[in-house]
Amino acid sequence: MSLMKHEPAGKLRLGVLLSGGGTTLLNLLSEIEAGRLNAEVAVVIASRECKGAERAAEAGLDVHIIAYKEMPDNEAYSRKINEVLDSAQIDLACLAGFLSFWRIPSRYEGRVMNIHPALLPGFGGKGFYGKMVHKGVLASGVKVSGCTVHFVNNEYDAGPIIIQRAVPVAEGDTCETLATRVFEQECVAYPEAIRLFANGQLQIEGNVVRVLAPGT
Amino acid sequence: MSLMKHEPAGKLRLGVLLSGGGTTLLNLLSEIEAGRLNAEVAVVIASRECKGAERAAEAGLDVHIIAYKEMPDNEAYSRKINEVLDSAQIDLACLAGFLSFWRIPSRYEGRVMNIHPALLPGFGGKGFYGKMVHKGVLASGVKVSGCTVHFVNNEYDAGPIIIQRAVPVAEGDTCETLATRVFEQECVAYPEAIRLFANGQLQIEGNVVRVLAPGT
Repeated sequence: MSLMKHEPAGKLRLGVLLSGGGTTLLNLLSEIEAGRLNAEVAVVIASRECKGAERAAEAGLDVHIIAYKEMPDNEAYSRKINEVLDSAQIDLACLAGFLSFWRIPSRYEGRVMNIHPALLPGFGGKGFYGKMVHKGVLASGVKVSGCTVHFVNNEYDAGPIIIQRAVPVAEGDTCETLATRVFEQECVAYPEAIRLFANGQLQIEGNVVRVLAPGT
Repeated sequence: MSLMKHEPAGKLRLGVLLSGGGTTLLNLLSEIEAGRLNAEVAVVIASRECKGAERAAEAGLDVHIIAYKEMPDNEAYSRKINEVLDSAQIDLACLAGFLSFWRIPSRYEGRVMNIHPALLPGFGGKGFYGKMVHKGVLASGVKVSGCTVHFVNNEYDAGPIIIQRAVPVAEGDTCETLATRVFEQECVAYPEAIRLFANGQLQIEGNVVRVLAPGT
Protein backbone atom coordinates (compact mmCIF):
# COMPACT_ATOMS: atom_id res chain seq x y z
CA MET A 1 0.00 0.00 0.00
CA SER A 2 1.36 3.40 -0.95
CA LEU A 3 1.50 6.05 1.72
CA MET A 4 1.71 9.66 0.60
CA LYS A 5 1.58 12.87 2.54
CA HIS A 6 2.52 16.48 1.78
CA GLU A 7 4.72 18.14 4.40
CA PRO A 8 3.60 21.69 5.12
CA ALA A 9 6.07 24.42 4.14
CA GLY A 10 4.65 27.94 4.11
CA LYS A 11 2.35 29.40 1.51
CA LEU A 12 1.12 26.80 -0.97
CA ARG A 13 1.80 27.44 -4.66
CA LEU A 14 -1.20 26.40 -6.74
CA GLY A 15 -1.48 25.64 -10.42
CA VAL A 16 -5.09 25.92 -11.58
CA LEU A 17 -6.21 24.14 -14.77
CA LEU A 18 -9.49 25.11 -16.39
CA SER A 19 -11.49 24.99 -19.62
CA GLY A 20 -14.62 27.02 -18.91
CA GLY A 21 -16.04 29.87 -16.92
CA GLY A 22 -13.44 29.94 -14.16
CA THR A 23 -15.96 30.13 -11.31
CA THR A 24 -13.97 27.65 -9.24
CA LEU A 25 -10.81 29.72 -9.76
CA LEU A 26 -12.68 32.85 -8.64
CA ASN A 27 -13.82 31.05 -5.51
CA LEU A 28 -10.25 30.02 -4.65
CA LEU A 29 -9.02 33.57 -5.24
CA SER A 30 -11.67 35.00 -2.94
CA GLU A 31 -10.80 32.45 -0.23
CA ILE A 32 -7.14 33.47 -0.53
CA GLU A 33 -8.01 37.17 -0.45
CA ALA A 34 -10.18 36.65 2.63
CA GLY A 35 -7.20 35.08 4.37
CA ARG A 36 -8.87 31.69 4.71
CA LEU A 37 -6.42 29.88 2.45
CA ASN A 38 -2.66 30.26 2.88
CA ALA A 39 -1.92 29.85 -0.81
CA GLU A 40 -1.28 31.73 -4.04
CA VAL A 41 -2.24 30.90 -7.59
CA ALA A 42 1.20 30.65 -9.19
CA VAL A 43 -0.04 29.76 -12.64
CA VAL A 44 -3.26 29.13 -14.58
CA ILE A 45 -3.46 26.75 -17.54
CA ALA A 46 -6.46 26.85 -19.85
CA SER A 47 -7.07 24.15 -22.44
CA ARG A 48 -8.66 26.70 -24.77
CA GLU A 49 -9.61 30.35 -25.02
CA CYS A 50 -12.38 30.73 -22.46
CA LYS A 51 -13.99 33.04 -19.95
CA GLY A 52 -11.89 31.48 -17.19
CA ALA A 53 -8.65 32.39 -18.98
CA GLU A 54 -9.92 35.98 -19.41
CA ARG A 55 -10.88 36.24 -15.77
CA ALA A 56 -7.49 34.87 -14.69
CA ALA A 57 -5.70 37.44 -16.84
CA GLU A 58 -7.91 40.22 -15.43
CA ALA A 59 -6.89 39.09 -11.94
CA GLY A 60 -3.26 39.59 -12.97
CA LEU A 61 -2.38 35.90 -12.93
CA ASP A 62 0.15 34.15 -15.15
CA VAL A 63 -2.09 32.44 -17.73
CA HIS A 64 -1.05 29.90 -20.33
CA ILE A 65 -3.44 28.70 -22.97
CA ILE A 66 -2.36 25.23 -24.02
CA ALA A 67 -4.85 24.17 -26.64
CA TYR A 68 -5.35 20.43 -26.75
CA LYS A 69 -6.30 20.40 -30.41
CA GLU A 70 -3.08 22.13 -31.43
CA MET A 71 -0.85 19.42 -29.97
CA PRO A 72 0.12 16.30 -31.97
CA ASP A 73 -0.86 13.82 -29.26
CA ASN A 74 -1.70 13.40 -25.60
CA GLU A 75 1.90 12.80 -24.64
CA ALA A 76 3.09 16.07 -26.16
CA TYR A 77 0.13 17.85 -24.58
CA SER A 78 0.86 16.45 -21.13
CA ARG A 79 4.56 17.25 -21.44
CA LYS A 80 3.74 20.87 -22.22
CA ILE A 81 1.55 21.10 -19.13
CA ASN A 82 4.26 19.53 -16.98
CA GLU A 83 6.78 22.11 -18.22
CA VAL A 84 4.55 25.04 -17.31
CA LEU A 85 3.72 23.62 -13.86
CA ASP A 86 7.39 22.76 -13.23
CA SER A 87 8.60 26.22 -14.05
CA ALA A 88 5.94 27.74 -11.80
CA GLN A 89 7.21 25.46 -9.01
CA ILE A 90 3.75 24.51 -7.88
CA ASP A 91 3.01 22.43 -4.78
CA LEU A 92 -0.48 21.40 -5.86
CA ALA A 93 -2.35 21.35 -9.16
CA CYS A 94 -6.08 22.02 -8.93
CA LEU A 95 -8.33 20.99 -11.78
CA ALA A 96 -11.18 23.46 -11.93
CA GLY A 97 -13.47 22.47 -14.76
CA PHE A 98 -10.57 21.16 -16.87
CA LEU A 99 -11.88 19.05 -19.72
CA SER A 100 -8.72 17.81 -21.44
CA PHE A 101 -6.83 14.71 -20.44
CA TRP A 102 -3.51 15.48 -18.80
CA ARG A 103 -1.46 12.35 -18.18
CA ILE A 104 -0.05 12.99 -14.72
CA PRO A 105 3.64 12.20 -14.29
CA SER A 106 4.80 10.32 -11.21
CA ARG A 107 6.36 13.45 -9.69
CA TYR A 108 2.88 14.95 -9.41
CA GLU A 109 1.24 11.86 -7.91
CA GLY A 110 -0.72 12.85 -4.81
CA ARG A 111 -0.38 16.52 -5.81
CA VAL A 112 -3.28 16.92 -8.20
CA MET A 113 -6.85 17.52 -7.04
CA ASN A 114 -10.12 17.73 -8.89
CA ILE A 115 -13.65 18.67 -7.92
CA HIS A 116 -16.56 16.77 -9.38
CA PRO A 117 -20.19 17.98 -9.07
CA ALA A 118 -21.64 14.66 -7.85
CA LEU A 119 -21.00 12.03 -5.22
CA LEU A 120 -18.39 9.77 -6.82
CA PRO A 121 -18.14 6.92 -7.65
CA GLY A 122 -21.66 7.65 -8.92
CA PHE A 123 -22.14 9.86 -11.97
CA GLY A 124 -18.46 10.03 -12.85
CA GLY A 125 -16.21 8.78 -15.62
CA LYS A 126 -16.14 9.56 -19.30
CA GLY A 127 -19.10 11.59 -20.53
CA PHE A 128 -20.01 12.90 -17.07
CA TYR A 129 -18.86 16.51 -17.21
CA GLY A 130 -20.56 19.84 -16.61
CA LYS A 131 -24.30 19.77 -17.13
CA MET A 132 -24.23 16.09 -18.16
CA VAL A 133 -23.54 15.14 -14.55
CA HIS A 134 -26.67 16.83 -13.22
CA LYS A 135 -28.71 15.50 -16.14
CA GLY A 136 -27.63 11.99 -15.23
CA VAL A 137 -28.43 12.54 -11.56
CA LEU A 138 -31.94 13.83 -12.30
CA ALA A 139 -32.70 11.05 -14.78
CA SER A 140 -31.64 8.39 -12.29
CA GLY A 141 -34.13 9.52 -9.66
CA VAL A 142 -31.63 9.72 -6.79
CA LYS A 143 -32.66 12.09 -4.00
CA VAL A 144 -29.19 13.09 -2.82
CA SER A 145 -26.36 14.52 -4.86
CA GLY A 146 -23.33 16.55 -3.87
CA CYS A 147 -19.72 17.19 -4.73
CA THR A 148 -16.47 15.30 -4.44
CA VAL A 149 -12.92 16.59 -4.09
CA HIS A 150 -10.46 13.84 -4.94
CA PHE A 151 -6.86 13.26 -5.81
CA VAL A 152 -6.46 12.65 -9.50
CA ASN A 153 -4.89 9.58 -10.98
CA ASN A 154 -4.80 8.59 -14.62
CA GLU A 155 -8.37 7.29 -14.68
CA TYR A 156 -11.35 9.59 -15.04
CA ASP A 157 -12.88 10.48 -11.65
CA ALA A 158 -11.40 7.41 -9.93
CA GLY A 159 -8.75 8.80 -7.56
CA PRO A 160 -8.85 8.73 -3.75
CA ILE A 161 -11.64 10.87 -2.31
CA ILE A 162 -10.73 13.69 0.07
CA ILE A 163 -14.05 15.37 0.87
CA GLN A 164 -17.67 14.89 -0.14
CA ARG A 165 -20.57 17.15 0.69
CA ALA A 166 -24.15 16.10 0.08
CA VAL A 167 -27.13 18.16 -1.05
CA PRO A 168 -30.76 17.14 -1.49
CA VAL A 169 -32.21 16.76 -4.95
CA ALA A 170 -35.42 18.75 -4.72
CA GLU A 171 -38.77 18.11 -6.39
CA GLY A 172 -38.88 20.09 -9.63
CA ASP A 173 -35.10 20.52 -9.87
CA THR A 174 -33.59 21.33 -13.25
CA CYS A 175 -29.91 20.88 -14.13
CA GLU A 176 -29.48 24.57 -13.36
CA THR A 177 -31.12 24.64 -9.91
CA LEU A 178 -29.28 21.48 -8.90
CA ALA A 179 -25.96 22.78 -10.25
CA THR A 180 -26.40 25.97 -8.21
CA ARG A 181 -27.08 24.03 -5.01
CA VAL A 182 -24.11 21.73 -5.61
CA PHE A 183 -21.80 24.63 -6.49
CA GLU A 184 -22.44 26.25 -3.09
CA GLN A 185 -21.01 23.12 -1.50
CA GLU A 186 -18.14 22.99 -4.00
CA CYS A 187 -17.16 26.47 -2.81
CA VAL A 188 -16.81 25.08 0.72
CA ALA A 189 -15.31 21.70 -0.11
CA TYR A 190 -12.48 22.64 -2.46
CA PRO A 191 -10.84 25.28 -0.25
CA GLU A 192 -11.23 22.94 2.74
CA ALA A 193 -9.47 20.11 0.87
CA ILE A 194 -6.64 22.46 -0.12
CA ARG A 195 -6.34 23.69 3.48
CA LEU A 196 -6.06 20.10 4.72
CA PHE A 197 -3.40 19.42 2.09
CA ALA A 198 -1.50 22.59 3.00
CA ASN A 199 -1.55 21.56 6.67
CA GLY A 200 -0.16 18.12 5.86
CA GLN A 201 -3.36 16.48 7.13
CA LEU A 202 -4.08 14.32 4.08
CA GLN A 203 -2.52 10.89 3.91
CA ILE A 204 -3.22 8.68 0.92
CA GLU A 205 -3.39 4.99 1.80
CA GLY A 206 -4.16 3.05 -1.35
CA ASN A 207 -7.54 4.34 -2.48
CA VAL A 208 -8.47 5.85 0.87
CA VAL A 209 -7.55 9.32 2.08
CA ARG A 210 -7.09 9.60 5.82
CA VAL A 211 -7.64 13.02 7.32
CA LEU A 212 -5.13 13.36 10.14
CA ALA A 213 -5.54 15.59 13.18
CA PRO A 214 -3.81 18.98 12.77
CA GLY A 215 -0.10 18.89 13.61
CA THR A 216 0.13 15.09 13.28
CA MET B 1 -43.81 5.81 -19.00
CA SER B 2 -45.82 4.12 -16.25
CA LEU B 3 -47.56 6.34 -13.76
CA MET B 4 -48.47 4.84 -10.41
CA LYS B 5 -49.91 6.39 -7.30
CA HIS B 6 -51.59 5.01 -4.17
CA GLU B 7 -54.88 6.66 -3.26
CA PRO B 8 -55.15 7.28 0.47
CA ALA B 9 -57.87 5.34 2.28
CA GLY B 10 -57.63 5.33 6.07
CA LYS B 11 -55.18 3.39 8.14
CA LEU B 12 -52.50 1.69 6.05
CA ARG B 13 -52.14 -2.08 6.40
CA LEU B 14 -48.48 -3.07 6.32
CA GLY B 15 -46.86 -6.41 5.66
CA VAL B 16 -43.32 -6.47 7.02
CA LEU B 17 -40.80 -8.99 5.64
CA LEU B 18 -37.61 -9.66 7.58
CA SER B 19 -34.75 -12.13 8.05
CA GLY B 20 -32.76 -10.75 10.97
CA GLY B 21 -32.93 -8.75 14.15
CA GLY B 22 -36.14 -6.89 13.43
CA THR B 23 -34.81 -3.46 14.43
CA THR B 24 -36.53 -1.82 11.47
CA LEU B 25 -39.84 -3.45 12.45
CA LEU B 26 -39.42 -2.18 16.02
CA ASN B 27 -38.84 1.32 14.69
CA LEU B 28 -42.02 1.18 12.61
CA LEU B 29 -43.99 -0.11 15.59
CA SER B 30 -42.75 2.70 17.80
CA GLU B 31 -43.63 5.29 15.13
CA ILE B 32 -47.12 3.82 14.94
CA GLU B 33 -47.46 3.76 18.72
CA ALA B 34 -46.31 7.37 18.95
CA GLY B 35 -49.09 8.31 16.54
CA ARG B 36 -46.72 9.48 13.86
CA LEU B 37 -47.67 6.82 11.34
CA ASN B 38 -51.32 6.08 10.53
CA ALA B 39 -50.71 2.38 9.90
CA GLU B 40 -50.83 -1.05 11.44
CA VAL B 41 -48.60 -4.06 10.91
CA ALA B 42 -51.14 -6.56 9.58
CA VAL B 43 -48.68 -9.38 9.09
CA VAL B 44 -44.99 -10.22 9.47
CA ILE B 45 -43.17 -12.70 7.24
CA ALA B 46 -39.77 -14.03 8.26
CA SER B 47 -37.62 -16.02 5.84
CA ARG B 48 -36.20 -18.04 8.76
CA GLU B 49 -36.33 -18.38 12.51
CA CYS B 50 -34.74 -15.18 13.76
CA LYS B 51 -34.74 -12.58 16.47
CA GLY B 52 -37.05 -10.41 14.37
CA ALA B 53 -39.69 -13.15 14.22
CA GLU B 54 -39.47 -13.57 17.99
CA ARG B 55 -39.82 -9.86 18.58
CA ALA B 56 -42.80 -9.67 16.23
CA ALA B 57 -44.50 -12.51 18.10
CA GLU B 58 -43.77 -10.82 21.44
CA ALA B 59 -45.44 -7.69 20.07
CA GLY B 60 -48.55 -9.79 19.43
CA LEU B 61 -48.26 -9.63 15.65
CA ASP B 62 -49.35 -12.28 13.17
CA VAL B 63 -46.02 -13.89 12.22
CA HIS B 64 -45.41 -16.40 9.44
CA ILE B 65 -42.07 -18.08 9.03
CA ILE B 66 -41.71 -19.02 5.39
CA ALA B 67 -38.33 -20.66 5.14
CA TYR B 68 -36.74 -20.24 1.75
CA LYS B 69 -34.75 -23.43 1.97
CA GLU B 70 -37.83 -25.52 2.62
CA MET B 71 -39.50 -24.52 -0.64
CA PRO B 72 -38.86 -26.36 -3.94
CA ASP B 73 -38.06 -23.22 -5.95
CA ASN B 74 -38.32 -19.46 -6.04
CA GLU B 75 -41.70 -19.53 -7.75
CA ALA B 76 -43.27 -21.66 -5.03
CA TYR B 77 -41.61 -19.49 -2.40
CA SER B 78 -42.93 -16.28 -3.93
CA ARG B 79 -46.42 -17.76 -4.33
CA LYS B 80 -46.49 -18.63 -0.63
CA ILE B 81 -45.54 -15.07 0.29
CA ASN B 82 -48.21 -13.68 -2.02
CA GLU B 83 -50.85 -15.86 -0.36
CA VAL B 84 -49.97 -14.64 3.11
CA LEU B 85 -49.90 -10.99 2.06
CA ASP B 86 -53.15 -11.38 0.10
CA SER B 87 -55.04 -12.88 2.99
CA ALA B 88 -53.76 -10.12 5.31
CA GLN B 89 -55.10 -7.60 2.77
CA ILE B 90 -52.06 -5.39 2.96
CA ASP B 91 -51.74 -2.02 1.26
CA LEU B 92 -47.95 -1.91 1.35
CA ALA B 93 -45.21 -4.49 1.86
CA CYS B 94 -42.10 -3.24 3.67
CA LEU B 95 -38.87 -5.18 3.36
CA ALA B 96 -36.99 -4.75 6.59
CA GLY B 97 -33.75 -6.68 6.34
CA PHE B 98 -35.31 -9.37 4.17
CA LEU B 99 -32.62 -11.48 2.53
CA SER B 100 -34.58 -13.91 0.38
CA PHE B 101 -35.69 -13.20 -3.15
CA TRP B 102 -39.43 -12.68 -3.47
CA ARG B 103 -40.56 -12.35 -7.06
CA ILE B 104 -43.10 -9.56 -6.86
CA PRO B 105 -46.32 -10.16 -8.77
CA SER B 106 -47.77 -7.36 -10.89
CA ARG B 107 -50.58 -6.73 -8.39
CA TYR B 108 -47.96 -5.59 -5.85
CA GLU B 109 -46.04 -3.34 -8.25
CA GLY B 110 -45.54 0.05 -6.68
CA ARG B 111 -46.62 -1.38 -3.33
CA VAL B 112 -43.36 -2.85 -2.04
CA MET B 113 -40.66 -0.75 -0.35
CA ASN B 114 -37.20 -1.58 0.84
CA ILE B 115 -34.60 0.29 2.86
CA HIS B 116 -30.94 -0.04 1.96
CA PRO B 117 -28.14 1.20 4.25
CA ALA B 118 -26.23 3.14 1.57
CA LEU B 119 -26.85 5.73 -1.11
CA LEU B 120 -28.03 3.68 -4.08
CA PRO B 121 -27.17 3.13 -6.88
CA GLY B 122 -23.80 2.89 -5.09
CA PHE B 123 -23.09 -0.10 -2.88
CA GLY B 124 -26.16 -2.05 -3.87
CA GLY B 125 -26.94 -5.19 -5.79
CA LYS B 126 -26.09 -8.79 -5.12
CA GLY B 127 -23.62 -9.32 -2.29
CA PHE B 128 -24.25 -5.91 -0.72
CA TYR B 129 -26.32 -6.75 2.33
CA GLY B 130 -25.96 -6.06 6.04
CA LYS B 131 -22.41 -5.44 7.15
CA MET B 132 -21.05 -6.03 3.62
CA VAL B 133 -22.55 -2.71 2.54
CA HIS B 134 -20.64 -0.70 5.14
CA LYS B 135 -17.47 -2.71 4.50
CA GLY B 136 -17.70 -1.81 0.81
CA VAL B 137 -18.30 1.85 1.64
CA LEU B 138 -15.28 2.05 3.95
CA ALA B 139 -12.99 0.21 1.52
CA SER B 140 -13.97 2.55 -1.31
CA GLY B 141 -12.86 5.64 0.57
CA VAL B 142 -16.07 7.62 0.02
CA LYS B 143 -16.71 10.32 2.62
CA VAL B 144 -20.51 10.30 2.49
CA SER B 145 -22.86 7.37 2.95
CA GLY B 146 -26.50 7.21 3.93
CA CYS B 147 -29.66 5.27 3.39
CA THR B 148 -32.14 4.79 0.58
CA VAL B 149 -35.83 3.94 0.70
CA HIS B 150 -36.99 2.71 -2.69
CA PHE B 151 -39.80 0.89 -4.37
CA VAL B 152 -38.82 -2.67 -5.10
CA ASN B 153 -38.88 -4.19 -8.54
CA ASN B 154 -37.54 -7.58 -9.53
CA GLU B 155 -33.90 -6.44 -9.67
CA TYR B 156 -31.77 -6.14 -6.55
CA ASP B 157 -31.70 -2.57 -5.20
CA ALA B 158 -32.69 -1.07 -8.55
CA GLY B 159 -36.23 0.24 -8.04
CA PRO B 160 -37.32 3.89 -8.04
CA ILE B 161 -35.85 5.87 -5.12
CA ILE B 162 -38.26 7.55 -2.71
CA ILE B 163 -36.01 9.11 -0.05
CA GLN B 164 -32.29 9.26 0.61
CA ARG B 165 -30.60 10.67 3.68
CA ALA B 166 -26.85 11.24 3.79
CA VAL B 167 -24.41 10.83 6.68
CA PRO B 168 -20.70 11.60 6.84
CA VAL B 169 -18.19 8.77 6.89
CA ALA B 170 -15.96 9.73 9.81
CA GLU B 171 -12.22 9.20 10.21
CA GLY B 172 -11.69 5.95 12.11
CA ASP B 173 -15.15 4.57 11.33
CA THR B 174 -15.70 0.83 11.58
CA CYS B 175 -18.61 -1.04 10.00
CA GLU B 176 -20.33 -0.82 13.38
CA THR B 177 -19.94 2.91 13.98
CA LEU B 178 -20.99 3.67 10.41
CA ALA B 179 -23.95 1.27 10.61
CA THR B 180 -25.13 3.01 13.79
CA ARG B 181 -24.94 6.45 12.18
CA VAL B 182 -26.77 5.25 9.07
CA PHE B 183 -29.44 3.43 11.09
CA GLU B 184 -30.39 6.67 12.86
CA GLN B 185 -31.28 8.08 9.46
CA GLU B 186 -33.04 4.87 8.41
CA CYS B 187 -35.32 5.35 11.42
CA VAL B 188 -36.33 8.75 10.02
CA ALA B 189 -36.43 7.88 6.34
CA TYR B 190 -38.53 4.71 6.33
CA PRO B 191 -41.49 6.05 8.33
CA GLU B 192 -41.37 9.23 6.27
CA ALA B 193 -41.54 7.27 3.02
CA ILE B 194 -44.48 5.24 4.36
CA ARG B 195 -46.26 8.43 5.46
CA LEU B 196 -45.83 9.92 1.97
CA PHE B 197 -47.23 6.71 0.47
CA ALA B 198 -50.15 6.69 2.90
CA ASN B 199 -50.95 10.30 1.98
CA GLY B 200 -50.94 9.49 -1.73
CA GLN B 201 -47.97 11.81 -2.28
CA LEU B 202 -45.71 9.35 -4.14
CA GLN B 203 -46.04 9.11 -7.88
CA ILE B 204 -43.83 6.70 -9.80
CA GLU B 205 -42.88 7.97 -13.23
CA GLY B 206 -40.63 5.42 -14.87
CA ASN B 207 -37.59 5.19 -12.61
CA VAL B 208 -38.24 8.49 -10.85
CA VAL B 209 -40.48 9.00 -7.82
CA ARG B 210 -42.13 12.38 -7.66
CA VAL B 211 -43.11 13.62 -4.22
CA LEU B 212 -46.35 15.52 -4.64
CA ALA B 213 -47.59 18.28 -2.37
CA PRO B 214 -50.02 17.03 0.29
CA GLY B 215 -53.58 16.74 -0.95
CA THR B 216 -52.57 16.76 -4.63
